[in-house]
Formats: sequence, C-alpha cells, structure tokens
Amino acid sequence: MEIGFLGLGIMGKAMAVNLLRHGFKVTVWNRTLSKCEELAAEGASIEETPAAVIKKCKYTIAMLSDPSAALSVVFDKDGVLEAIEHKGGYFLEAPVSGSKKPAEDGQLVILAAGKKELYEEIIPAFDVLGKKSFYLGQVGNGAKMKLVVNMIMGSMMNAFSEGLCLADRSGLSCQTLLDVLDLGGIANPMFKMKGPTMLQSSYSPAFPLKHQQKDMRLALALGDENAVSMPVAAAANEAFKKARSLGLGDLDFSAVYEAVKVAEGSASATK
Amino acid sequence: MEIGFLGLGIMGKAMAVNLLRHGFKVTVWNRTLSKCEELAAEGASIEETPAAVIKKCKYTIAMLSDPSAALSVVFDKDGVLEAIEHKGGYFLEAPVSGSKKPAEDGQLVILAAGKKELYEEIIPAFDVLGKKSFYLGQVGNGAKMKLVVNMIMGSMMNAFSEGLCLADRSGLSCQTLLDVLDLGGIANPMFKMKGPTMLQSSYSPAFPLKHQQKDMRLALALGDENAVSMPVAAAANEAFKKARSLGLGDLDFSAVYEAVKVAEGSASATK
Amino acid sequence: MEIGFLGLGIMGKAMAVNLLRHGFKVTVWNRTLSKCEELAAEGASIEETPAAVIKKCKYTIAMLSDPSAALSVVFDKDGVLEAIEHKGGYFLEAPVSGSKKPAEDGQLVILAAGKKELYEEIIPAFDVLGKKSFYLGQVGNGAKMKLVVNMIMGSMMNAFSEGLCLADRSGLSCQTLLDVLDLGGIANPMFKMKGPTMLQSSYSPAFPLKHQQKDMRLALALGDENAVSMPVAAAANEAFKKARSLGLGDLDFSAVYEAVKVAEGSASATK
Amino acid sequence: MEIGFLGLGIMGKAMAVNLLRHGFKVTVWNRTLSKCEELAAEGASIEETPAAVIKKCKYTIAMLSDPSAALSVVFDKDGVLEAIEHKGGYFLEAPVSGSKKPAEDGQLVILAAGKKELYEEIIPAFDVLGKKSFYLGQVGNGAKMKLVVNMIMGSMMNAFSEGLCLADRSGLSCQTLLDVLDLGGIANPMFKMKGPTMLQSSYSPAFPLKHQQKDMRLALALGDENAVSMPVAAAANEAFKKARSLGLGDLDFSAVYEAVKVAEGSASATK
Repeated sequence: MEIGFLGLGIMGKAMAVNLLRHGFKVTVWNRTLSKCEELAAEGASIEETPAAVIKKCKYTIAMLSDPSAALSVVFDKDGVLEAIEHKGGYFLEAPVSGSKKPAEDGQLVILAAGKKELYEEIIPAFDVLGKKSFYLGQVGNGAKMKLVVNMIMGSMMNAFSEGLCLADRSGLSCQTLLDVLDLGGIANPMFKMKGPTMLQSSYSPAFPLKHQQKDMRLALALGDENAVSMPVAAAANEAFKKARSLGLGDLDFSAVYEAVKVAEGSASATK
Repeated sequence: MEIGFLGLGIMGKAMAVNLLRHGFKVTVWNRTLSKCEELAAEGASIEETPAAVIKKCKYTIAMLSDPSAALSVVFDKDGVLEAIEHKGGYFLEAPVSGSKKPAEDGQLVILAAGKKELYEEIIPAFDVLGKKSFYLGQVGNGAKMKLVVNMIMGSMMNAFSEGLCLADRSGLSCQTLLDVLDLGGIANPMFKMKGPTMLQSSYSPAFPLKHQQKDMRLALALGDENAVSMPVAAAANEAFKKARSLGLGDLDFSAVYEAVKVAEGSASATK
Repeated sequence: MEIGFLGLGIMGKAMAVNLLRHGFKVTVWNRTLSKCEELAAEGASIEETPAAVIKKCKYTIAMLSDPSAALSVVFDKDGVLEAIEHKGGYFLEAPVSGSKKPAEDGQLVILAAGKKELYEEIIPAFDVLGKKSFYLGQVGNGAKMKLVVNMIMGSMMNAFSEGLCLADRSGLSCQTLLDVLDLGGIANPMFKMKGPTMLQSSYSPAFPLKHQQKDMRLALALGDENAVSMPVAAAANEAFKKARSLGLGDLDFSAVYEAVKVAEGSASATK
Repeated sequence: MEIGFLGLGIMGKAMAVNLLRHGFKVTVWNRTLSKCEELAAEGASIEETPAAVIKKCKYTIAMLSDPSAALSVVFDKDGVLEAIEHKGGYFLEAPVSGSKKPAEDGQLVILAAGKKELYEEIIPAFDVLGKKSFYLGQVGNGAKMKLVVNMIMGSMMNAFSEGLCLADRSGLSCQTLLDVLDLGGIANPMFKMKGPTMLQSSYSPAFPLKHQQKDMRLALALGDENAVSMPVAAAANEAFKKARSLGLGDLDFSAVYEAVKVAEGSASATK
C-alpha cells in the first residue's frame, strides 16, 4: 500500500517511520524539506508539494501541527476537502489522541470520521499507527470528539491543580497527595506523569497551555451552539486564560498550576 | 493482637471480617447489636458499649458511617479523643479511601494521622485492611487529605458529566466517548465504573451525592481558611447543590449528570 | 440637515420620529416598506433601497435590529463600510444604550466610533436622539464598549436572580428584598424595573435572553483575545446557556431567573 | 424615651449622636470607655458595663463592630438573647445597611427582626436613625436579608471589576466606561462611588474585603442549607478569596479589582 504523508513534525515523523517499518511504501512532504531527508534514510520517497504527493499516492495522510490551521485548510471554501471531493477523492479526518511516545510505539488512539469506505480501506495503516481506531460518522465528529476529551482533560488538570494547592496550603505533603491519588479510584496516567513535574514548577510543553485553552474555548463554543451549560469547563477555561495573562501560554498546559498558586506579593494597591 | 471494632456498617463489617480471617482476635460493638451476631459467627467477641470494648482491647478501631458525626464524637470537648488522652491512651484518625469491595478484599487506602508510635504498632492490622497506609502527621491531616481527594473527584465527576452531555447534544455517541476516554491519558477507574451506569440514568448510591457535596463544601471551607481560591471546585459544588435541589441528594454522586442534563420543559414562564 | 434612516424597527421608528419632530428632514427605508408609511405621515420621504437613501442624503443612519447581522453587513468584505469609503464617504458606528422609551424620549446613550469629523458634524442629530453621546475612537470600539456594558449587566442580572432565589428559599420575602435593594448602594433602574415582573414569572422580551447570552459570549471572546480572565461573567454565561437549553431564549433576559429557580421534579433518575 | 447604646464605633457613635440631637435620653457603654466621653459632651450618660445599661434603660441598642462576634454574643447558649428573654425582655436584631455618612445623616436602612411589639415601640428611634426600617419576622431574618444583599453586592463588584479590566485591555477608556455606565439602566451609587478610586488603585476600607468575602461565604452557606445553587456568587467568592491570598483582605472590598487585573510577571515557572 502506497501512502503519502504530509507533515513531519514530532508526531508525523514518528508515524511515518512506523509505517515504513511495517512495510508500507511512504512518500513524504514537509514544509521544511530538510526534515524529509531523515525519512528518506528510512526508505521514504520525497515530493516537493502536497499536490505531487496526492497525485502519486492512493492514500495520503496529513499530520499538521496546528489543528485549527489544519481544519481551516481542510474545511474552508476552496480547501482540501472540496478539492479532493471535486476530483472524486474521499476525505477522512482522523485526529489522534496521544503524544510523541505513543506515536513512536504505534499506540495512538485514532478518531476517524468521514467516508466510511475509505476508513475501512485504510485500517491496515491505522492498525500500525494506533492501538485503536474509532469510526465516528460524518466529518467533523473526529474534531468534536477530541474537543470533548480535551475539555474533560482541561477541567481535570484544574481540579488537580486546585487540589495540590489546597493540600500545600493546608499543611499536607503534595507528594503524599500524588501517592494517595495514584492508589485510588481517580488514578490516571495524566496525574501520574504531570504531578511530579508540576511540583517542580517544570513545564516543558508536551501540550502547550495556549492550545489547551483554545480547545476549552472551542468546546465551550460547541456547547454554546447546542445550548449545553458547562460551568465547570467555563471556570477551568477562565483559569487557563488567567494563566495566559500571566505569560504561561507557551508552557505545558499543566502550568495552570502556577496561576492557581499565585499569591501574596503579586498585586499592588494602596489604602 | 486483640483489636476492638466499633461500627459494623458496610465498611466496618467487611474490615472486621478481614481481621478475623487473618488471625486477629476481634471484639465488636455496634449501635444495633443484632449486627454483631454475624461477626460472632466468624469468631468475634461482642461487647455492649464502646467503653467496654475500649476497656478490653489495647487497640480499638472505630468505623462510623457518618464522617462528620464521627469527627464530632472524636474531636468535640468531652469527646473520645480527650477521654482517651486523659487516660493516657492515644488516638489515630484513619479515614479510608475505597468502598465495599476494597474493604472486603483488604485493598483500602488508609490515611492515618495522630500518634506516630500508635501508627507503627497498628501496622500489622493496617496491612490486612489496606493495600497501603500513609502516616500524615498530626490529627486532622487524615480528614483533610480525604477532603482534598474527594474535592478533586467531585470536580472530575462534573467534568465527566459535562463532557458526556456535550458529546450527546453534539451528535456523538456517549458510549464511544467512554471507549475513547478509557484508552487515553485521563483513563481512570471512576470513569470506567460510573460511565456505563450514568448512561442508563442508574444511580445506586455507592457514595451519596449529598455526602459528596458536603465534602466539596468542607474542602472549600478549608480553602477559605487558607485563602486558596478554587473556582473549578466552587463551580462543581454549585452543580452538586443544583442536583440536591432537584431531589437527587440520596442517589449516587454521579447523578450530578442528571442536573447537567436538565433541559427544555423543566421551567415555566410567560412572555 | 437631510438625514437618511435605514431600519424602522421599534428603535429606528422612535428615533426617526424624534428627528422629524426636531425639524430634520428625514428620508427613510425599511425592508418592509409598509412601515415607512407611518413615518411619511410624520413628514418623512421614502426611498425603496438603501442605496437610494445613501445617494440622496449627506448623512445616513442605519438602525438594524440584529447587531451581529448589522456588523456583518457593515464590516464584511464588500460590506457597507468598504462601499462607503470606496466612494469617499465616512462611517461611524454608533450602538445605542437604551430601549423603546428612551428612544422615544431622545434619552438614548450613543456610543460612537469611527471618523472623528463625521462624529462632530452629526452631533446636532445625536443631541436630539440621545441624552449623551460618546466618541470612542476607532471603529469597533463602540461595539466593544456595548459588549462590556452588557456583560456587566448580564452578570448583575444573574447575581440578582441568585439573590431572589436565596431570599425565597430562606424564608424571606422577595418583595421586601426588592424594597431593601432599592434603598441601598446597589439600587439601579434594572433591578427596579425587572424585579416585580420577575416575581410574576413574566418575561415580555425587552431584550431577548438569547441576545444577552450572545453578548456574554462575544464579551468572553473579546476577553479571550486579550487574555482577560472573567470567571464571574463565565458563570453568568453558563447560566444563560442553561436558560436557553430550558427553552427560555426568546423571553426577556431576566428569565434567567427561571433557570436559577429550577428545582425538584425536573430531573428523572433511578436508584 | 430612655435608650441605652452599646458600642460606639464609627457607626454606633454617629447613631447615638443622632438620637441625642433628636431629643432622646441616651446612656452609652463602650469597651474602651474613653470613647464615651465624646458622647457625654453631647449629653449622654455613661455606664461601665452593658448590664448596667440594660438595667437602667427600657430599650438598649447594641451596635457592635464585628457582625459574627455580635451574633455569637447574642445567639449562643448563655448569650444576650437567652439572658434577656429569661428576664422577660425582648430582642430585636436590626442590622443596618449603610456606612458612616448615612449613619450621621440618619439615612440608614434598618433590617429589623424579632419581637414585633418591640419593633413597633422602638419605631420613633428607628425613624431618627434610618430613612426606612423593615420588619422581617423572626430573629435571624435580619442577618439573612443582609447576607442576600451583600452577596448581590459582591457579585456586582466582581462583574464591575471584570468589565473595567476587559475595557482596559481591549483599548477602551475605563473612565468612559464609568461615564457610560452611569447613564444607563445599571447605574448605581456603588459603581459611581467606587469606580474612580478603583481606577487609582486606592482602597481605603469602607467595607473591608475580608468581611465582604465572609459575607459571600455565609450567603453561600445559607444557600447550601437550602439547596440553592448560586454559581455566579460562588465564582465571585473565589475571586475574593484570591484577593485575600494576594494580601488584599484589609483593603476595601473593591480591591478585588486588583486580583482580577493580576497579570504577566506574577508567576514563575520554567520550561
């Protein structure tokens, strides 16, 4: 199966390598062409434009870094979707859940939506890239599902941050709180992974806070369209906005903890 | 080791049985004495008053159903704590995390605080009752730690409910959302266990909503004392209050989902 | 001064009449032309298209019912603004604060922004239409100022509703609360006017709830752009969304009180 | 009419003077006795204990600085209320709305509750002290009514602060926002009085922020008792808590504006 691959960022590169190692023929394109060479060393062919990739390959996967840009490129008037369908091609959106490590290990979760037949044909590639793929119906549902998941995640990160802050100021050990949480009914990989770095105020951006806040905003907008009231998500969103106003937007989204912690000495006022 | 046991509710009974099966001598008391007989059949001795139990046993465990009542009994002037210490005894608070099943299986998480020496002596019993025990320092820290954990849990349950509601009204499958969540970085036992029953509007009370709301309120009060702002927890608390106002207080705390879902047809007004 | 007038809804009609009565020559257009006849009886000329009005009059005022539609018409590519400036004309946005009665009485507050010279030339008309006009600088500032005001108003309406609900359920008289409020430091015309009708669950739409919610959303979006965290406005917005989900969107925005009040009997769930 | 007066703080002194100037005989007591001398110069008698005042005067008014202390003194076991009623006396709670200036001018709003007959007898004094008095029924209703009013006030102050912050960061003039607000349907004395000082970050404490936050908390607790969900008040309360954590508790409650404004430079974190 000949597969085109557009976008060789952290995720795209890992995924393309995975496909090559499982015997797929892969033709790649990237805005910065130099990134293609590493893939060529793994056996990939290179093309200089997306159009050339699409022309050559029956299936083309696009893995672009900025989801909103990607959506815009795809769904806008004169976008990829229209172009493809105009020429009798099919489109499948397939946002993934998971970051660099799961991408390398083929352990992503794939949220596919669009042309059902195309989904079924491409399953062999999805089987290599992810531990599980879902078919969610019409185009748009993949993005929506991802927004819902990220909204829950963002609210959880706030709840977690508030809990750490409350523990700390109440004289409890934050490390012990992490240990207790990890043994209970709400134990989850995010708390386990982010907790220790948050206690060190270390926020290397796996998922930048400004992107998390954007997803909260978009999820709330989706709720607005459908008249769904989500006060907890709204409060979490405002906390992420506060974090942005504190200059934390480019750090990991767990840096919202710093906004929760902000205390005495940060404001100035006179009697 | 001779251990006294006060309170044979769902949790206490399971724990006392566990101790008996691991070779401890156990003397029990319960407000409703008939409940003691089941334990007698497992080999327990029975006493008719807490005082008699305390007099007989070097160590006495109290497992009372209502945490605030228990705290009041223990900490109030003339309460158990004063009484014990007056007589040279020691007190250890030890709220547990976990419900019926973990209690039966000796898989509780024990949050002990108080007299360190007593904690160390009683470890053999804690090893039988729980998969892990923590020593948290001065009395009060056990209850505080539990409040912090339950506050995070309550906010997460709201985030989860809002996500399910958003998925549903946006045309996504709630079951698929559960499946996607279960494969990702925020997968946790609570979502896995409560999700399916919530989709059936079935709320058999493992942890009654009114108790969850009380813990949210107490956690917020703890934050108030320490000037910790927790807007997400506050929003979650208001949702639990709304659920109480809807008559859902005696159902499981996951019934907050019903409050999130309430929609058209529930209000009456005229132009 | 010859003034064109586009849009003869509740507000536009009152304003155009006002101009006529103060000696201005007024040429009107309205989508439904029949509405123009009432104005003709007051001395107005009628034209059949906006273009004809603009061609005839040095100054044209547009008073369109739906602010977002109006903004879109004005600011979009190929919109009025582009058209006007292309022909050497000038544009002034001028949202007004006030409803039917102030419009009739020439007591509006006018939030003008755009070409400063045009603002100064049109002051004689503004003096007739409003008790006060402000010049706010570049186009867009008028709409922004109105959003800020409406956001404060929406949060206040929620605070008021919560207070009424709390009084009622705490055994206090809501009417007495209105009386007490009206004598204190937060007394304001909105509480005075809306309070009595809210107590009767009567919500004849002076400002429809769905429009208030839209303004809350747009104000929050403006805050998002500028990284301003507004948790109280966000909570108020979610309450308005809940009201929409309850089917109250077409009633007056004070109907959010019904969403705050929703209680027992509105949810269904099983143990 | 002989009236006893306990407590000569800012409010009490102004009120006692008012009574003297309207021909009442007044006997005063204050914890710091020296404060009584100023009143003696106005014609008041002095007693050295509250008991002596109560013994001498048919009616005694207590105006104590800290409402919760006052409530505790009055309602607790062995408190004033019990003592009075035990001796056949009657109690009327009467929190007032208004600060120093209205107290001096006899323009307070009096929220009386308790023994109806006593209320009716004391009306001549209330007529001097306030512009209006309300009889609210059983003891407790006065305090509750005041909490409801202060809760609305606290939420409004937050809405106002968010609006000012949004205006500022969106490039609008905050002074113009004040002017626009003052001409519209939500114009109120609080915005008019506090707005200009807030823009100067000047917070001389007319009503300390920590007391406002306490009233928010107590109002939320009242809502908790009665299962009233108040998400906007809850969000406002968390903002006041944040302000406390920033060290603003002793400033005027309008200093919550500083907490809303806190931005870039206040948090520290590393990538």
